[in-house]
Parts: sequence; C-alpha cells; structure tokens
Amino acid sequence: MALIVQKYGGTSVGDADRIKAVAARVAATHKAGNQVVVVVSAMGHSTDELISLAADVSGGRHPREMDMLLTAGERISMALLAMAIRDQGVEAMSLTGSQAGILTDQSHGAAKIRDIRAIRVQEGLDLGRVVIVAGFQGVSPDTKEITTLGRGGSDATAVAMAAFLHADVCEIYTDVDGVYTADPRVVPDARKLDEVSFEEMLELAAAGAGVLMMRSVEFGRRFNIPLHVRSSFHDGEGTWVKEKTMESAAVTGVAHDTTEVKVTVQDVPDRPGVAAALFEPLSDAGINVDMIVQNTSQDGHTDISFTVPHSDAGEALAVARGAAETLGAGGVDLDEHIAKVSVVGAGMRSHPGIAARMFSVLATADINIAMISTSPIRVSCVVDAAKAEEAVRLLHAAFDPPFDPMEESR
Amino acid sequence: MALIVQKYGGTSVGDADRIKAVAARVAATHKAGNQVVVVVSAMGHSTDELISLAADVSGGRHPREMDMLLTAGERISMALLAMAIRDQGVEAMSLTGSQAGILTDQSHGAAKIRDIRAIRVQEGLDLGRVVIVAGFQGVSPDTKEITTLGRGGSDATAVAMAAFLHADVCEIYTDVDGVYTADPRVVPDARKLDEVSFEEMLELAAAGAGVLMMRSVEFGRRFNIPLHVRSSFHDGEGTWVKEKTMESAAVTGVAHDTTEVKVTVQDVPDRPGVAAALFEPLSDAGINVDMIVQNTSQDGHTDISFTVPHSDAGEALAVARGAAETLGAGGVDLDEHIAKVSVVGAGMRSHPGIAARMFSVLATADINIAMISTSPIRVSCVVDAAKAEEAVRLLHAAFDPPFDPMEESR
Repeated sequence: MALIVQKYGGTSVGDADRIKAVAARVAATHKAGNQVVVVVSAMGHSTDELISLAADVSGGRHPREMDMLLTAGERISMALLAMAIRDQGVEAMSLTGSQAGILTDQSHGAAKIRDIRAIRVQEGLDLGRVVIVAGFQGVSPDTKEITTLGRGGSDATAVAMAAFLHADVCEIYTDVDGVYTADPRVVPDARKLDEVSFEEMLELAAAGAGVLMMRSVEFGRRFNIPLHVRSSFHDGEGTWVKEKTMESAAVTGVAHDTTEVKVTVQDVPDRPGVAAALFEPLSDAGINVDMIVQNTSQDGHTDISFTVPHSDAGEALAVARGAAETLGAGGVDLDEHIAKVSVVGAGMRSHPGIAARMFSVLATADINIAMISTSPIRVSCVVDAAKAEEAVRLLHAAFDPPFDPMEESR
Repeated sequence: MALIVQKYGGTSVGDADRIKAVAARVAATHKAGNQVVVVVSAMGHSTDELISLAADVSGGRHPREMDMLLTAGERISMALLAMAIRDQGVEAMSLTGSQAGILTDQSHGAAKIRDIRAIRVQEGLDLGRVVIVAGFQGVSPDTKEITTLGRGGSDATAVAMAAFLHADVCEIYTDVDGVYTADPRVVPDARKLDEVSFEEMLELAAAGAGVLMMRSVEFGRRFNIPLHVRSSFHDGEGTWVKEKTMESAAVTGVAHDTTEVKVTVQDVPDRPGVAAALFEPLSDAGINVDMIVQNTSQDGHTDISFTVPHSDAGEALAVARGAAETLGAGGVDLDEHIAKVSVVGAGMRSHPGIAARMFSVLATADINIAMISTSPIRVSCVVDAAKAEEAVRLLHAAFDPPFDPMEESR
C-alpha cells in the first residue's frame, strides 16, 4: 500500500464536470489500495474573481483581509470535491490549511511554511478516508491568523504535506503533459522529459519554465520526495522529478523568461562596499533581484547590471538612482525589452564546452548577448526580447535535448 | 460609550456599493464613540449559488462538506466589509465563527449555539477595532468541525454575541423598516410598530411574521438584550423588541402563515398513550409539528389533527399512517390548502373577549375555521388558504392594532 499525495490545480477543478472527473481518478487510486491525500487549488478563475471583487470594494491594501477573502476559494473546491468522491463510494473529508496543520510565518500573501502538524490528516488516513487539504493556505501559530502562501502555494502545500507524511510520491496534476525540453509553443518539436533531477528542475524553474515553482521543487529535493508532473486530462505518464543516479544529459532543456527587465548603473567607483550599497536597499524594498553582472573595472570605474521582475521595474529604478547618487556613480539605465535564455543540464559539470557552443550558436545568428550568468549546471544569456524565441529554437536544434554526451562521443 | 452589535443580512451586503454603504454606517457608529461588533451574512444570493453548485457536483447528502462549502460565503462578505471599513479610516478585522468563539453542538446544517468564547472579539474591541463576525457559522468543540446554524442563523449569532458581550443593543438591519401590525403586502394600511415585547415577538414569529426568527428573539428575551429591527437603506427608527414595562396592547398584530399543511388521523381510540404513540415517531423523524388539536371523544373515538411544514408533508403522512395502523385508528387525511391566521397581543391576558371577537369576524365573512389553538397572548385559526388574506384584512380592520384596550374603555 503506497501513500500518494495528489495535487490538482485550478484548471483541473474548473467546473462541476471536471471536479467529478478528478473525483473518479482519486477514487480509483484509493480503490487500487493506496492511501490518498489530495491538495486542491481554487476553482478556475475564482481567485481572480475574488481579487476583482475586492478591487470593486476597496482601493487600499488589506493583506490580512485579502487572505481571509482568498482562502474562501479552496474551501469551495475542496468541499465540492469531497462530495464528489463520497458519491464514488469512498469516504472523504476536506480540511482547511489550518485544520491540516499547515503552520506558516506571519507574512500575509506570501507566507512561508514553517512546520506541518498534520494530526487530523493522519487521523483521516487511519480511518481509511481520502483526505482533501486546501492548497495555498495556512495559519500562523504566533498570530492565530489565516495566511496564504503566494504564487505556487498549492504545489508547496502538496510537497510539504508529502514530506511530512513520508509519501511515496507527490503527483502534480496540471494542464500540460509534463516538463518539456523547451516551451512547446515556441519549439514545436520539444520533447517531454521522462525524468529530470531536482537540481535541474530548480534551474529550469528559475530560468522561466512555468510548470513547477522553485519552492515546491526545493521541498521535494530537501526531503527527497519524488514529484510526478502529469496531465489531469489523461492517464499517460508525465515527468518524474527526483534525485538522479544514472549519468545525466549535458543539456536537459532550454528555457526562456520574458518577465524581467534589466537595470544598469554606469560608472560605479570600483571600491569595496559598492555592491552592498546598491543591493541592500533593493533587498530592503522587497525587490527580487535575479541576475547580477559586474564588468571588469576600467579606470577605477565599472558598470553593474541586474534583472528584476517587470512589476518591480519602477521601484528598482528609483532605488538604484538613489544608490547611484550616494555612490557618485553615473546614470541609471532601464531596458524593458530583454529576455533571458538558458541552457540547463546536470551533465554540464563534466562538459565545459556547453557555454562556448551556446555563445557560438547565438553569434552565428547575429544575436547579441547583453549579460551572461552561469551556474555549474546552467548558462543564461540576456538577449533582445525580439530575438528570444529564435534563440530558443536555435539552441534547441543545436543541443537536441535531452542531449547525452556519451552518445555523441561514440 | 455604548457597545453596539449590528447584524446585516445578505441583501444589505449584496454588491460592492452596498458593502461600501454598510461600511459608512459602521464607521459612523464607531466614530460617534461606540464600540461596534458587526455580524454579517453571505452576499445576496451567494449561498443559493453555492447550493446549486453542490447540486451540479453531487446528488448525495454530505452535511459536513455542505457546511464547509457554505461557510465560504460569509468569509467573502466579512473580508470585503473589513476592507471597506478600513478605507473609512477605522481599524477593522474579520473573524470566522470559529475564531469568534461561536461554540455549537455537532448538528451539521442546523447546529445550536452552546456557548460563546469571544476572546478574540474582546481583544479586537480593546484595541479600538470594529470586529466583524461571520454569521450563521460556528465550530463544534467536540468534533472540531465547522458547523452552520440553519435558517435565521446570522440573527442568532448576532443576539448571542450581544448577550455574551453585554451589549447595549443588538441592531438587526434588514430590507424592511421594522415589524408591522400585519404583512404590508396583504394589508396596505398596516402600521410599523415602535416597540413590541419579546413574548409578543416570539408569538408573531411563530405565527408567520418573517422579520425575525424565533431563536434570536428567544436569545434576546433570555439575556434581556434589546433588539432594534431597522432598515439598512435609511436612518429612520425601526421596531424595538424588548422587555416591556408599560401596559400592553390587547392586539399588537395580525400574522399569517401559508407554509404548513394539516394532517388528520380519524377515529383514534380514546385511551391513554394514544397521542404519544402518534407524536413520538413524528419527533423521531425530525418533523417539526406546530399546532395539535384533539377533539372531544365521541363513542370512545376521537380525531387528532396537526400541522407540519409543507416540506415535511410526505414523511408526516407516512409516519401518521404507520401509527394509525398500530393504534387501530381510521384513515389519515392530508389538507395542503390551509393557512394559519393569528392575532397576537400581550394585553389579551386581561381581555378575554379577543378570541370570541376573532371567531365572530371570521363567521360574519363566512370563513370556516378548521382548527383553533390558543396561548395566553395569541389566538390562531386554521382556515382555507384561499380565504387567508381576506381574513387578515378583516381582522386587522376589526382590531386596528396596536389596539389599546384602555383607549376603547374611555
């Protein structure tokens, strides 16, 4: 008997018929002799509708009340799903994040899971029930307040719950078939990956692959819970995300991200403490800085560039201008028309030629590289947004992921 | 500084603009120097929409999950109202029934309030905040399950909260101006009552006046919390429901109720235990019996008639037929076309002529009386449903409530 955690996103429970289809799948998994915990998001666009209702009522910021409002969404979907599963002859009960023991910090709208005390989940399983847990929500034990986990929160709930319960697998049901070697909308012959390692998935997620959020992959990695990303519309296998033991591909996938902008501070004096003077105020302002590149110093001055999400552009510019003035730097530039293109693969560690080949592919197509950043298993280049899709297609054709260096050497 | 509990029904918070209007009223009450606790229902028809969604998903009965589903409704309205009040510059926070300490029994869908532990409500008031409490919902401390209070539940929440907090008044905001001497849709010159006693209001509610449910009036009476029933659309005074000290009117109002049916068991042997043998199985089946009339015995046999809600008619008939067989009684009749017409007034105690005058008014109009039932301050007659509105109009004209016997004797 396996213990399986299944997570269904909003599209999968978007209307009454889809809820019934999910119920049939859950019931079948239970009847096959497994213990099942289901984590569910709010139905379809219901969260957006609640946000819009709040905007009609108030122009202000009310993080606590917003969490109270939005947590109504999963309450509806989980109760309906419990009814539909019971109609299949399987005992089921729904639990809010608070009832399921999802304990978080106090940060309304972007809370982090601190601990899990899934006593009532375990009781339900012991009684032979399917237990449905509201995704995306928790409770702060310090303030006794209801919190939400922010973007990707339901995945995080599922993986954290799987970790606490020592589940055999955490299945993430979604509207795509799995993790692909590139975005299939951009690269028509992108291939579905059968498996990918946690560290590669982390890099892919950071590089813009939208299937899984980094935080849930990080949970899976830390507690070694295999994730199975699969479609809620058919029974086919998806992509397994897990600790890998066999040899890894040099290039597992090509990802791109068009949600960021680039800020450049020019003519920064090259002395100790300069980077801190720039990035500490950005951090204090809650701005999520992604890539940072500092050029080699010339004449005692250098340029520092960094990327931030589009939504933070205005604030990042203001903070950077303030820091530039303090530092006696030159002007601050904003480039909104950029894209980040990344090549990811764990086998890259033993194949140092990947980065050079990536630069060469882009150069041949006359695509200029504005920034470069690397990790041991990733190379990312910032390019003109208009050239991003072409770059992805060329790199996918050149590396043909999942590219196995052992095969090429034969 | 007074402590005021305000309760707003679903119509009063039916859309964004109405929520803002309620927020303005709440903020004004707070700014006038009062402590304010607000109890709120789900928005407009949202409860009906959730019920219909559940019917699309499942044909079964799932009381626990139904409560989980429906309690999403007040969560939405209370969070939105908190935002709107905060926009008025008044600190506000919303609390679920569970957070507000509304402790109930375990009966899903029709739970009774057992105790109130409004610790967080009191903390909020002490911090100078408006505290918004979800109506209609609570938590069973025995099972830790979320419960709902059934029909009129939000009123019950408000009055129970007012009792626990020793509030100065519990204001019930609604879409009518107050309690009337008769239904204004039937009697155009019905008058709004300035005040009415708890016991009269209990009788009026039992007799079909829909403004307040009996349970909330009973709470008010038991803890002596004055209720002020008033319109949420204007500032005019409504009707005060309270313990009365001055002389009471002989007839305060005329009420009618067309939601019941009459069941008659014929030729019941007249011996001890017969009534118990009929009404115990009805009670065991959860059927709410209202009037019971047993005629004088003739030849050792009698007829027993009783009224039940329309929705219970089929089950009541089946139970009565079973009991009739056991008892060796005759047939069982069902009359679906009845109405109950009642005259209510606390002054009736010292004016025994009211019942006789009521029968005379009905007789003059050739309206046949099928059943009669009385309390010290009420006379109810069951008549043909087609004659109900005529009967109400004639009785209202004859008694001219609020009819003061002292004036007539002058």
